Amino acid sequence: MQDKLLISRKLDELGVDFIEGGYPLSNPKDATFFEEAKSLKLSHAKLVAFGMTRRKGISAAEDTGMGALRDAGTEYVTVVGKTWDLHATEVLGVSLEENLEMIADSVRYLTSVGRKVIYDAEHFFDGTAANQAYGLRTIEAAARAGAVMICMCDTNGGSLPERVAEFVALAKAHLEKAGFKTPLGIHPHNDSGVAVANALAAVNAGAVQVQGTINGIGERCGNVDLTTVIANLALKMGKSVLKAAGSEAASLAHLTEASRYVYEIANLNLVNGQPYVGMSAFAHKGGMHVHAVNKLAKSYEHVPPESVGNTRRILVSELSGVSNIAAKAGKKFDIEKDRAVQKKILDRVTQLEADGYQFEAAEASFELIVRREVGRYRKFFELDHYRCAVTRTAGHVPVTRANLTLLIAGKELTASAEGDGPVNAIDNALRQALMPVYPSLEQLRLVDYKVRVVNSTASTAAKVRVSIEFKSPHGGASGLFGTVGVSENIIDASWQALVDGVEYHLIHEVESKP
Amino acid sequence: MQDKLLISRKLDELGVDFIEGGYPLSNPKDATFFEEAKSLKLSHAKLVAFGMTRRKGISAAEDTGMGALRDAGTEYVTVVGKTWDLHATEVLGVSLEENLEMIADSVRYLTSVGRKVIYDAEHFFDGTAANQAYGLRTIEAAARAGAVMICMCDTNGGSLPERVAEFVALAKAHLEKAGFKTPLGIHPHNDSGVAVANALAAVNAGAVQVQGTINGIGERCGNVDLTTVIANLALKMGKSVLKAAGSEAASLAHLTEASRYVYEIANLNLVNGQPYVGMSAFAHKGGMHVHAVNKLAKSYEHVPPESVGNTRRILVSELSGVSNIAAKAGKKFDIEKDRAVQKKILDRVTQLEADGYQFEAAEASFELIVRREVGRYRKFFELDHYRCAVTRTAGHVPVTRANLTLLIAGKELTASAEGDGPVNAIDNALRQALMPVYPSLEQLRLVDYKVRVVNSTASTAAKVRVSIEFKSPHGGASGLFGTVGVSENIIDASWQALVDGVEYHLIHEVESKP
Repeated sequence: MQDKLLISRKLDELGVDFIEGGYPLSNPKDATFFEEAKSLKLSHAKLVAFGMTRRKGISAAEDTGMGALRDAGTEYVTVVGKTWDLHATEVLGVSLEENLEMIADSVRYLTSVGRKVIYDAEHFFDGTAANQAYGLRTIEAAARAGAVMICMCDTNGGSLPERVAEFVALAKAHLEKAGFKTPLGIHPHNDSGVAVANALAAVNAGAVQVQGTINGIGERCGNVDLTTVIANLALKMGKSVLKAAGSEAASLAHLTEASRYVYEIANLNLVNGQPYVGMSAFAHKGGMHVHAVNKLAKSYEHVPPESVGNTRRILVSELSGVSNIAAKAGKKFDIEKDRAVQKKILDRVTQLEADGYQFEAAEASFELIVRREVGRYRKFFELDHYRCAVTRTAGHVPVTRANLTLLIAGKELTASAEGDGPVNAIDNALRQALMPVYPSLEQLRLVDYKVRVVNSTASTAAKVRVSIEFKSPHGGASGLFGTVGVSENIIDASWQALVDGVEYHLIHEVESKP
Repeated sequence: MQDKLLISRKLDELGVDFIEGGYPLSNPKDATFFEEAKSLKLSHAKLVAFGMTRRKGISAAEDTGMGALRDAGTEYVTVVGKTWDLHATEVLGVSLEENLEMIADSVRYLTSVGRKVIYDAEHFFDGTAANQAYGLRTIEAAARAGAVMICMCDTNGGSLPERVAEFVALAKAHLEKAGFKTPLGIHPHNDSGVAVANALAAVNAGAVQVQGTINGIGERCGNVDLTTVIANLALKMGKSVLKAAGSEAASLAHLTEASRYVYEIANLNLVNGQPYVGMSAFAHKGGMHVHAVNKLAKSYEHVPPESVGNTRRILVSELSGVSNIAAKAGKKFDIEKDRAVQKKILDRVTQLEADGYQFEAAEASFELIVRREVGRYRKFFELDHYRCAVTRTAGHVPVTRANLTLLIAGKELTASAEGDGPVNAIDNALRQALMPVYPSLEQLRLVDYKVRVVNSTASTAAKVRVSIEFKSPHGGASGLFGTVGVSENIIDASWQALVDGVEYHLIHEVESKP
């Protein structure tokens, strides 16, 4: 749940127009999301609740799905309906006329209760190929009932760009002839490997909305990857896409960061070869080639990597890398002019990243690195040792106990605690030892804990990266901050991330006092 | 080296026309490859050696690169040359006229020594966009010198399909006007996420060759993925693509196998969402939807999975019904008619899914559940207890040791092992205890290990789901099978997944014996 709120905030910062937040009827968690999302205060993006047309044989007002959409309380809602005659009769089991009524009723009802309705025409391309007249009647029904946007879905992902261009133009012409200027959208899937091209073809044919996901995450072969679509539209087709507070170019420069943030939250590995935003998208290898790149960047790069917030990878270029460090450290540390410190931090970060660390969602761990280099770090305790043991006897639940000894101002403090698992046990023991000395730790809460295998080829001997999200009065805007730890040993990776969280909290606690 | 020979044989079996085997000048191994490849006896495909145009200021006959190409002894060779004026002058440091001579000389020389020359026009699209007259002159020079094929390379991967279509048509018209009917090819890269669409656009504009790689393996964002191109051309554009001994359809049915073979040889993980050939390309989840797929496959699948040698995957999920269980259990257990057993399995799966288990990628754990219900399960050992402890002392790396006692046929077996982390230590101890009794476990390898927090709100006390992928002679088509374990304790979740893998392997080992 927390994840969806975080991603919504990120998408809003990036400057997208609409965020589809889930299907409130099918999933109680999605309903809760729309409730909690009201506190998000998005600056530009509109949250959208998603649902299907009313069921057969009842009025829209009686339908629980319609009610759930209405009660989500969003300005916009998306309703998906059947375009394909075969689906209406064989899957829904209704007549072609009743399907049209279901579309019209649903759009009309939601419009009547004050919602702006985006109509998703499921299987638009396959349905219209099978029965063109009927396919066009379904979207006309939605337009006539007041839909503010009609989105053509390539639900099975089987269309090629020529067909997409032809059918979008056909839909546009049909609606205009019927007297409607309803804007059109496209919702491609990647089953034929051409989802991005289909999105671009639709835009060229007059569509103004592209429905997809960051990184193309989605079932089967995925939805269209919006990061690629956004970059192509903005950089190659001269379209205005991102509408955050700043300029289009400034928003676009956050594309890579947004992509990696979503991978991190979704606990998925980065796709190195991903266009524009992948780690390898601007990687150059081979001596002569690299020389040519340095000599004449545009002769080997289709766009400047920095235009999408990515970086050229050859050797970490001191110039570009160092300036990023200063930017990431921010105003708090004012290292803009200290090239030596910037270089030291960059070297440390580069080394840690090579070891599997990632700092995109671990701003607190990054800040601790900066603090060490600028002399604004302090230690509140030292580890003497910890030990954590899990024992399981047949027929019993596993028992986990952690023991640790810390040194605080030269004094030994020992604690011992059980936990539901090793990380929980260590967290409990750490708090037990520290709380008497640093009572403000009571305000520090663990909000999320993620584990990722970094180099999966080495199987159980692989390194793991642990990411922890904390909440405390000293976190960012929402009180949240993240830390990271990496080790071949999951317990030790967790220990590192826990300790970073505690130190970050305590340093800020001290600095917040006059 | 062996790898390249294996892949060449596989590509020949699949029915591709040309296999580019490497750059004999730059790499002695590539030169050796062409020597050894002579014993391959390919049935249809032609091996091609790759190189650059002659260096500046010397004749083609004097050039060592030309000599290496000639000596590779292949019927066909590919020569890559500069299209972009900027590259000729700034990267090669030659005049525009000399670049044309280098192209012509190289093609003419290799033709004169009996080679058929494929000319690769590097940066064709960017170069022609920058200086159209010159770009066209470079390919005309190649045609005039006797090239049997001219391939237009989108070297930086920055072109969109419209430009590709336009420039291919332009090249074709230019060459025809100059009196040449040289066939054209396309060599796309995926930096804009539209490599497949670019290949298709070029074919629509008259190209007859697509240069790419199986699975799109290649630098930066990859070359075009030939598996997707082949499937689209053959199934959606009515082109004849694969020319193996059998029919086009029979060849196409080997596409998924060829893709996985290349991943295996290249030691890369499968990409689940890969179009046509990915593990998830035809995966369906959700009861009602799966019901519709069974009823009316083409309404949810853009092509029949078997047309490319892939299979439909019914994902067992919370929403799934009894009919899915029978489908997933498959022919091996023949429970189609036993509704009582189906119901029992479904209840068990539903309960485990509520606890955080997922069986999508854990077919072995699912099979063990089925086996328990149909009476085809057996236990090979019992746990008495395990204990795993991680100790870290300041200034030292963490030390991890696992001890366990198992009961095999009433006899106690004890083992103790260290590991890089707790899971590795337990795996080591388990194998140490079991190997003397079940030596076939040597054939069981851990391939991948994944951890995911299931209910992240409970922070470190949250449940984790561990997924392990194994490889053994008793796995599926590719030898792979997956298991899953869930617990609040990561060690115990790993233990469950490890034990399922061992049991699955041993049961199949026993059943495989007469």
